Amino acid sequence: MLPGDGIGPEIVAETEKVLNRINEQFDLGLQFDHGLVGGAAIDETGEPLPGKTLERAKKSDAILLGAVGGPKWDNLEMAKRPEKGLLGLRSNLELFANLRPAILYPQLASASSLKPEVVSGLDIMIVRELTGGIYFGQPRGVRTLEGGELQGFNTYVYSESEVRRIGRVAFEAARQRDGKLCSVDKANVLEVTAMWREIMDDLAKDYPDVELSHMYVDNAAMQLVRAPKQFDVIVTGNMFGDILSDEAAMLTGSIGMLPSASLNSEKQGMYEPCHGSAPDIAGQGIANPLATILSGAMMLRYSLGEEKAAGAIEAAVSRVLDQGLRTADIMSDGMQQVSTREMGDAVLAAL
Amino acid sequence: MLPGDGIGPEIVAETEKVLNRINEQFDLGLQFDHGLVGGAAIDETGEPLPGKTLERAKKSDAILLGAVGGPKWDNLEMAKRPEKGLLGLRSNLELFANLRPAILYPQLASASSLKPEVVSGLDIMIVRELTGGIYFGQPRGVRTLEGGELQGFNTYVYSESEVRRIGRVAFEAARQRDGKLCSVDKANVLEVTAMWREIMDDLAKDYPDVELSHMYVDNAAMQLVRAPKQFDVIVTGNMFGDILSDEAAMLTGSIGMLPSASLNSEKQGMYEPCHGSAPDIAGQGIANPLATILSGAMMLRYSLGEEKAAGAIEAAVSRVLDQGLRTADIMSDGMQQVSTREMGDAVLAAL
Ligand SMILES: CC(C)[C@H](C(=O)O)[C@@H](O)C(=O)O
Ligand SMILES: CC(C)[C@H](C(=O)O)[C@@H](O)C(=O)O
Repeated sequence: MLPGDGIGPEIVAETEKVLNRINEQFDLGLQFDHGLVGGAAIDETGEPLPGKTLERAKKSDAILLGAVGGPKWDNLEMAKRPEKGLLGLRSNLELFANLRPAILYPQLASASSLKPEVVSGLDIMIVRELTGGIYFGQPRGVRTLEGGELQGFNTYVYSESEVRRIGRVAFEAARQRDGKLCSVDKANVLEVTAMWREIMDDLAKDYPDVELSHMYVDNAAMQLVRAPKQFDVIVTGNMFGDILSDEAAMLTGSIGMLPSASLNSEKQGMYEPCHGSAPDIAGQGIANPLATILSGAMMLRYSLGEEKAAGAIEAAVSRVLDQGLRTADIMSDGMQQVSTREMGDAVLAAL
Repeated sequence: MLPGDGIGPEIVAETEKVLNRINEQFDLGLQFDHGLVGGAAIDETGEPLPGKTLERAKKSDAILLGAVGGPKWDNLEMAKRPEKGLLGLRSNLELFANLRPAILYPQLASASSLKPEVVSGLDIMIVRELTGGIYFGQPRGVRTLEGGELQGFNTYVYSESEVRRIGRVAFEAARQRDGKLCSVDKANVLEVTAMWREIMDDLAKDYPDVELSHMYVDNAAMQLVRAPKQFDVIVTGNMFGDILSDEAAMLTGSIGMLPSASLNSEKQGMYEPCHGSAPDIAGQGIANPLATILSGAMMLRYSLGEEKAAGAIEAAVSRVLDQGLRTADIMSDGMQQVSTREMGDAVLAAL
C-alpha cells in the first residue's frame, strides 16, 4: 500500500478497509504492508522512491497506489519530483502494460458532458505502453547552445521487442472482449510510430480472430469525442496513451470511478485510480474512493487470481451507486451526498 | 492555390470562386496562381513538394491549401509521402505560428456530441508551434540494434528562441481576445517542456495584462471534454497542438467549418481547413467547402490586411447557414442538404 500524496492517504485508507473485509470473507490470506512514495517520501527521506519502498514493492505480489504529486513539490528539479517515484516503480518493476478501462456506469450517465446517446453503454479498454517511449528515452535534458541559447530535448524511442510485448497484451485483451483492436500512432510523421504500425500488422497474423485497425493520434483524439463507442480496445505508446486515456476517462464524466492496472510479464502489478492527487481537495474528506476501491478489485483479478473476490467488490460498488450514494464529484439532483469515509463504509456494508 | 488531394480540389475550387468575387467587389488586385503538392504532386512529378511549387509559394503573399494525403500513397517511404509536401512548405517558409480557432457556430450547435450547455458559445484559439518539436527533430529513423532487433527513434527538441517566438504570438493573441492564455506541456516528465514552461513564465512579465496558466497535456485533453469554455487561448508545441487542436475542433461537431492559418514572422501565411483530405468522399461533390472558404477569409485578414473583405466572407457564410443550407457533414432535421458546388454558389449569392 503506497498512499502517496494529496487525497492518496484518504482513498487508500477506505480501500484498505474494503480489502481487509474481503480478505476475511474470502479467506484470502493477503498480507498488507505500507510504504512511502512521491512527495510524502520526499518530505520524510529526501527521495521520491526510497530504496526501502522499492525493495518492498519488488517483494509484493501487487501494489496499491493512491496518487503522487502536488504544488508543494512542483519546483523541485525533475529528478527529485514526486512523479519520479511513480515512474521509478513502473520502470524498476517493468510494469510495461497499463490497462485503463473507460466505462460509463449507467447510474452516472448524466455526469458526462457528452450527449447520453453518444456515451451510453461506453466500455473502452486503453492499453498503454508504460515503461518506454519518450517517458524514459535517452538522451534528454536542457543544454546551452553556442551563443548561449538554451535547448531542451527528449527522445521518443521504442525497440521492436517493447512494441511486440505490449502489442500481445492488447491483442489478448481484444480477444477477451469484442475482438476489435485500434492501434494509435503518428505513422505519417514519426518514424518510431511507423515502426510501431508495422509490428502491429505483423502481430495481427497471430490473432486472426482480432480485427486490427490503425488510427493517427490526432484523429483518435477527435473520434473519442465524436463517436467513442466505435472503440473496443485501443493500444498506443506511453505519451499518446497518457493523453488519450485521460480524454477517454473524462468522456464518462466520472473519472473518480475509474481504476487502472499496470502489469509486468509475471502479472505482478501496480493498481491505482486514473485520477490524480487532487491537492485542492486533499484532507477534506470529500474525495471519491471508488476508483481506488475498484483498483483493488482489479488487483484481485489480475495479480492475485481472485476473480470471485474482485467481482464481489465490483458488485458492492454498483449496489452503493444504486442506493443513490454519491461523493461530491459525481453528485447530482436527488442523490445523497456522502463523504470519503461514508462511501467506504457503504461499500463495506454492501459487502 | 494548392488544391492537393482527396476533396482538396473540390473545396479549393469553391473558395477560388468566392475569392474571385471578393477580388472584384473590393478591388483588391489579388493575383492567383496554382501549384501541385502532396499526392497530386507525387503522381505528376515524383515529389510531394516540387521545386516549382516551393518557389512559387515563397514568392506569394499567401497560400491557400486544400488538403494532402490518402491511402493511395500510404505505403510510400516516409520521405516521399504527401505529408512531406505540407511539412516542407511549413518549414521552408518558416510558418511557425499555427492559429486554429475552435468556434461553435450557433446555427450548428446541435451537431456537437457534447451537451449544449457545455459548448454553446465556445470560442477557443489554439496557437500551435508548427516548425519545430518532434515533427522536425533530429536524429530520427529506424536502426538495427546488435542482435538484429529494430529500434525506432525521434527527437523532441526546442530551442529557447523557438519557444519565445511562438509564445509572443500567443500572448499577443490573448491580448486581442479575453486576456487568458493557457500553456500546455508535460513539464513533470519531459525536460524540453519544463524549459517551455519556464520561458512562458519569463515572457509573461512582458504581458502583465494577460493571465497565464499552465496545464499538463493529459489534463488539457480532459478539460477540453469536461469544460471547454474555461479556455481562451491555448499555446503548445507541435505534437500536442496537433492532438489538442483536433480534439477542440471536434467539440464543435462541425470540423468541416473550421479554418486555420500558419504564419511566419513576415505575416506570410498558409491557410487551410482543419479537416483532412477525406479520401472516402473525394470526387462525390458532397464535401463541405466552408472551412476552406473561411480559411480564405483568414488569409485576407492576416496576410493581406483586408479586414473588410474578410468580414464580408464570414458574414456571407453566416447568412448561408441562417438560410438553412447544409452539406452532408453538418446536415440536420429540417435543413436543406446541398452539394459542395451549391454551397459555394450560395456563398457567392450571399456576397
Ligand atoms: C503523474 C504522471 C507522471 C503520470 C504520467 O504521465 O504517466 C500520470 O499522468 C499518469 O497518467 O499516470
Ligand atoms: C497531415 C499531417 C502531417 C498534419 C500534422 O500532423 O501536422 C495534420 O494532421 C495537421 O494537423 O495539419
